Amino acid sequence: MDFEHSERARMVMEQVERFVHERVVPNEQTYRDQLVNTEDWRRWKIPPVLEELKAEAQGLGLWNLFLPDEEYGAGLDNRDYAPIAEITGRSFLAPEVFNCSAPDTGNAEVLAQYGSEEQKKRWLEPLLAGEIRSGFAMTEPGVASSDATNMEATCEVVGDEVVINGLKWWTSGAGDPRCRVLIFMGITDPQAARHQRHSMVLVPIDSPGLKIVRMIPVFGHVGEPHGHGEILFEDVRVPLANIVAGPGRGFEIAQGRLGPGRIHHCMRAIGAAERALERLCERAVRRVAFGKPLANLGANRDIIANCRMAIDQARLLTLKAAWALDTHGTFGALTDISAIKVIAPNVLQTVVDAAIQIHGGEGMADAELSFLMGMARALRIADGPDEVHRGMVARLELKKYL
Amino acid sequence: MDFEHSERARMVMEQVERFVHERVVPNEQTYRDQLVNTEDWRRWKIPPVLEELKAEAQGLGLWNLFLPDEEYGAGLDNRDYAPIAEITGRSFLAPEVFNCSAPDTGNAEVLAQYGSEEQKKRWLEPLLAGEIRSGFAMTEPGVASSDATNMEATCEVVGDEVVINGLKWWTSGAGDPRCRVLIFMGITDPQAARHQRHSMVLVPIDSPGLKIVRMIPVFGHVGEPHGHGEILFEDVRVPLANIVAGPGRGFEIAQGRLGPGRIHHCMRAIGAAERALERLCERAVRRVAFGKPLANLGANRDIIANCRMAIDQARLLTLKAAWALDTHGTFGALTDISAIKVIAPNVLQTVVDAAIQIHGGEGMADAELSFLMGMARALRIADGPDEVHRGMVARLELKKYL
Amino acid sequence: MDFEHSERARMVMEQVERFVHERVVPNEQTYRDQLVNTEDWRRWKIPPVLEELKAEAQGLGLWNLFLPDEEYGAGLDNRDYAPIAEITGRSFLAPEVFNCSAPDTGNAEVLAQYGSEEQKKRWLEPLLAGEIRSGFAMTEPGVASSDATNMEATCEVVGDEVVINGLKWWTSGAGDPRCRVLIFMGITDPQAARHQRHSMVLVPIDSPGLKIVRMIPVFGHVGEPHGHGEILFEDVRVPLANIVAGPGRGFEIAQGRLGPGRIHHCMRAIGAAERALERLCERAVRRVAFGKPLANLGANRDIIANCRMAIDQARLLTLKAAWALDTHGTFGALTDISAIKVIAPNVLQTVVDAAIQIHGGEGMADAELSFLMGMARALRIADGPDEVHRGMVARLELKKYL
Amino acid sequence: MDFEHSERARMVMEQVERFVHERVVPNEQTYRDQLVNTEDWRRWKIPPVLEELKAEAQGLGLWNLFLPDEEYGAGLDNRDYAPIAEITGRSFLAPEVFNCSAPDTGNAEVLAQYGSEEQKKRWLEPLLAGEIRSGFAMTEPGVASSDATNMEATCEVVGDEVVINGLKWWTSGAGDPRCRVLIFMGITDPQAARHQRHSMVLVPIDSPGLKIVRMIPVFGHVGEPHGHGEILFEDVRVPLANIVAGPGRGFEIAQGRLGPGRIHHCMRAIGAAERALERLCERAVRRVAFGKPLANLGANRDIIANCRMAIDQARLLTLKAAWALDTHGTFGALTDISAIKVIAPNVLQTVVDAAIQIHGGEGMADAELSFLMGMARALRIADGPDEVHRGMVARLELKKYL
Repeated sequence: MDFEHSERARMVMEQVERFVHERVVPNEQTYRDQLVNTEDWRRWKIPPVLEELKAEAQGLGLWNLFLPDEEYGAGLDNRDYAPIAEITGRSFLAPEVFNCSAPDTGNAEVLAQYGSEEQKKRWLEPLLAGEIRSGFAMTEPGVASSDATNMEATCEVVGDEVVINGLKWWTSGAGDPRCRVLIFMGITDPQAARHQRHSMVLVPIDSPGLKIVRMIPVFGHVGEPHGHGEILFEDVRVPLANIVAGPGRGFEIAQGRLGPGRIHHCMRAIGAAERALERLCERAVRRVAFGKPLANLGANRDIIANCRMAIDQARLLTLKAAWALDTHGTFGALTDISAIKVIAPNVLQTVVDAAIQIHGGEGMADAELSFLMGMARALRIADGPDEVHRGMVARLELKKYL
Repeated sequence: MDFEHSERARMVMEQVERFVHERVVPNEQTYRDQLVNTEDWRRWKIPPVLEELKAEAQGLGLWNLFLPDEEYGAGLDNRDYAPIAEITGRSFLAPEVFNCSAPDTGNAEVLAQYGSEEQKKRWLEPLLAGEIRSGFAMTEPGVASSDATNMEATCEVVGDEVVINGLKWWTSGAGDPRCRVLIFMGITDPQAARHQRHSMVLVPIDSPGLKIVRMIPVFGHVGEPHGHGEILFEDVRVPLANIVAGPGRGFEIAQGRLGPGRIHHCMRAIGAAERALERLCERAVRRVAFGKPLANLGANRDIIANCRMAIDQARLLTLKAAWALDTHGTFGALTDISAIKVIAPNVLQTVVDAAIQIHGGEGMADAELSFLMGMARALRIADGPDEVHRGMVARLELKKYL
Repeated sequence: MDFEHSERARMVMEQVERFVHERVVPNEQTYRDQLVNTEDWRRWKIPPVLEELKAEAQGLGLWNLFLPDEEYGAGLDNRDYAPIAEITGRSFLAPEVFNCSAPDTGNAEVLAQYGSEEQKKRWLEPLLAGEIRSGFAMTEPGVASSDATNMEATCEVVGDEVVINGLKWWTSGAGDPRCRVLIFMGITDPQAARHQRHSMVLVPIDSPGLKIVRMIPVFGHVGEPHGHGEILFEDVRVPLANIVAGPGRGFEIAQGRLGPGRIHHCMRAIGAAERALERLCERAVRRVAFGKPLANLGANRDIIANCRMAIDQARLLTLKAAWALDTHGTFGALTDISAIKVIAPNVLQTVVDAAIQIHGGEGMADAELSFLMGMARALRIADGPDEVHRGMVARLELKKYL
Repeated sequence: MDFEHSERARMVMEQVERFVHERVVPNEQTYRDQLVNTEDWRRWKIPPVLEELKAEAQGLGLWNLFLPDEEYGAGLDNRDYAPIAEITGRSFLAPEVFNCSAPDTGNAEVLAQYGSEEQKKRWLEPLLAGEIRSGFAMTEPGVASSDATNMEATCEVVGDEVVINGLKWWTSGAGDPRCRVLIFMGITDPQAARHQRHSMVLVPIDSPGLKIVRMIPVFGHVGEPHGHGEILFEDVRVPLANIVAGPGRGFEIAQGRLGPGRIHHCMRAIGAAERALERLCERAVRRVAFGKPLANLGANRDIIANCRMAIDQARLLTLKAAWALDTHGTFGALTDISAIKVIAPNVLQTVVDAAIQIHGGEGMADAELSFLMGMARALRIADGPDEVHRGMVARLELKKYL
């Protein structure tokens, strides 16, 4: 195992770190102030400061760093992008500033790898230019999405069209006023072999028959200006050419986007945990009660040590997963990727909980800590709940003994 | 120890249980629908269904059950009120429906026990009639409120008036359009002995000089239509007669309201935990994944068993604390009250977290579970953070060896 | 729920407490010194101080307190015996001093309730006189004893004899030089209904064909002078009259001994946990490092508070289980009894672990703490592992929703 | 960070792995059978099989692998030795078989780095030849050894002699019949600067005035045939030339041996945890209860996943600590070394506890699991308790904010 980052990655890390520190974090409040607070997603607007920061970042070449494709993206492998993703986890604003935010990242990877020239031209290029955004419509209400074979939505091939029906939810970013296209996953051929039934289809968001039912609240927050959409597809028709890589390849494509996506999520979670620990420690040394800094009261030092040890371990395992993915591919990284998907969000939840606690009433009122609490909690469910990933780790472990 | 409830208490429990089940829970969604969702507290309105339910409950005599005073209240002791409080914890709406919600409960206790006849007439009676609501202005920003001697706000006696200055926050209920009066706690005599410096003063909320700065968000929610106010007092003047029980008795009065208040909070938390476990179990038996009900997957049965065992233990300790408070007074119940203040909110947080997790995406979107998550988290800070209460339990334990 | 102990129980508690404090604990070292340390159980001897203390306790009437039978025992119910069992948990020596140690307690209960007059005369009376000891041969190696239907040993009725075959282990007390009889449980009729296949048979330990294979080490200790026997039965023949209550009633009898036995174990575990916490606190206030008593270092106060809270909760739940058993019988106490069987040993393990840790090197070398560590660990397995009991709690909880 | 092992290390790893698998593990029982079980250390003998295995390992060049010194040892750095240490952790017998067992390892490092030619000739060479063994006399009873400035024993320079007085304990290996020399640490000059007061002195174990008081039991086991000695030094006189590196350099030398020693301990702990997890999984797939393999019952898969994730993270952090120590020296590795000293033993304890639990009664009786339980528990205290190391991690973390 070699976790050494390339010289180029180290250089980029430094630049990203400086930019986050000097430009992104100081503008978080501006962003919040510019945000239109309403639950009605039709009225959502993008705070201008975001587009300004994006332009700056793009100007510095800190752009599309997530994309390993050398033609379209930065050409960094997972090991090299991982520490950069960690840094962007330090600010809720940072991922998008660098055009590295989900689900565009996964969608762009899919298009770069599997898209036709026409698909790339029409969707990938504006995505990578930061001009439009996109959604990924896979999860369905009413069925346990931890078991992907439960999927019920369909995308039938009828002549030279694809006819799409079904109800999807947790389509993140669907409320963003810049969202133009969804990658929809559904069944094309229910009779096919189990992993060849599904296809991915590009669906313009303004397609007739596509109805955004609502933005789903996440712990009471609708997450403006992006949102998580519940979307009804009723006889939505798109050209056959909108199928990605051809009918029946949905599972294969989905498989490929999982690994990098989870590593990105986990590294951002680790960056977020570092930020929370920073907040915790600052409070511990500055706040005084009963005549002493909080750092010298109760179990606070043990809490800090436990946070530090948990974060450091989670980071190393995520780096190992990235290295394994780069070196051995998805199947050589299965245990590690499932493991970090459990560990990183739980570490984040623990650290944020401690950070809130040491801030007392201020912790409850703090926008950043509240955001991180929701993020941590959601990450334990999104993209496969803890249970499924623990089950995978156990299955692979027990296999050695069967 | 005898935790047996009186026959009267058992009868009331049954009635309250039925009313919560048949009238309160089915109207939760109506309440949510009638609620004006805005962060601007000046526009908050009380959903009519709440007042309707209050009238019904009052008609049935299920009213002011918390108040041990036999003249003004139901005359139940802590042990007898505890199980009733638990039942009201099963619905976010229930405490107020029975006119048993904080901070009115504590304020009413203070007035019933220490108030002058005039104070009772003017404030206690409408409170107990459910016509007005009240706030308690004690906590201050910028100082560690876990250390009460840090308080800085003042209520100086000048002639036959009290002049009030200072900044308070976490004055819960201050945004409620029916809130008419605050009990303010501040320093009257900085030279007096440490526990005789403070007084409690009744301050009408429309007093000149009293300014509601904002409603503080709790994990991003302002908590309409009640809210948690940050309130500035600038030379607010009220008649000397508004001091409760005379100058210098603030600490003594505060002391007395702590025990029952914590028992109420904890029993409601336990009721809330029961509700969350119910949600968890219902989901476990009804939802199927990988061909099995969730109850038969992974560690879910262990999780359910752990929740049941934690709740049952927390309830027993809270009943013991109530019994000890009734039998031996505050000082005979110190360890138990601090212990439950740590345990009950943590049990609630654990159970709710598990309930959310088993619901997956639906858990993140669920209004009740989201509310309970915030409630649990806030309770670990409000009214003394875990740390202070653990410290108290340890101090009393170690005392035996000194 | 009424946990109030009877006046008689309170009086006995006081006497037992005084005797443990003044006579038992001060003689623990004498006992250890008199003990013959050898792994060869054939050479084991009972330290004379034990018999002296037994005589004293018997003289004071502090004898057979566990036995609810009014004729043969003290006539205390579970609720009243529970706090006495707790006190005996404070010294490894105490249970036997008061003639209240397992497995004699369970065996005596069985004989008092189900034994024939002859069986009582021959075995129960000397047991209750403290003259002989006994064993209980139920668990079998090679099969999961958490699933009792796995049992393979047989006790066939042949004419007026019972012919016994099979291998048993964990027959505690089988190495005691005073052990005279075993209660053996095995299959009499494999064709009978599932819970009527088994019988209990009294087997004198010197029966031809009965061979003690070895004393099983428990974490490396054979537990002289009692031991846990692995015992081979090869065509052991005893008279038909040695069957307890008649053939086929084994399960019914086993069922009945479980509840009280678990309550005894748990209360002793709680007493042991109190002893460990005492050791922890004494060390915390007396030992100085870095210029401060350990109580003022690190997270030690949190640890102490957590121990106190865990013990108090475990005690209350055990008292509730005792009360439920007395009031509603075994089936009304199932959840509580399974719950405490999980909780009490785990609490003990946690508290002992903390007590060892705060003692550092001395903790590793300390005979009492080492004994308690092994006791805690063993209790999580003996008499049904945690897993089985958690499973039972979950099953009963989920039943409400089916 | 580059955790890639050198080609040579990988080759040695393979050989060691094979030798442990084929020669060491299969001889564990022989070793146990040959062992003289007695608490009287004067009668201890070394089982012949051990010396046979040592000769074999030495013959294969699998010898002194721990020693980075290229002249005397294998010349592997910490990163390269770490995985080898892990493999030796899989058998209690393995470290000594490869002449890589504590405290000889630390003592040899000290002599190789600081010893005079004469010291090397007399003590280092026979140690590295596996002919003699040694002890390290540093810890003292009665003072908190987590605070090294508490040390009270003295080694005064008087003329050309050193006069040694004091009581030491936890001198591991002091009961080994082959133990010939102790490295004693004590105060030479109480007036010197705080870290220049102490010296290390080589003391032949048969020196007049040196008295082995007893072998200290560790959780009831004296650990034959090595033991942990309590040793009284009364006017023990050795030549001045026996001081290592000169008077006053005790702390400096002690400092240097800490890092590698802790990495060795932690890697062995990780190897032991792997062994325990192996036992757990084997049991999980082979044992059946209620008609299913244990792997499919209760929370066992979660437990297995948690163990796997904990071990993998602990290993990575230990490798990072080794890499940091090699690359940046002790002071660049402080956080990581303290962190792993907390984590690795706790992970081991957790995994072993789970392995015991799944084995039920057999787990209590199992020699290997019992040994590992004691090892895990002791490691949380030995060489600095968890508390001190957590404190160090927190101190270094908070320093960033001061």
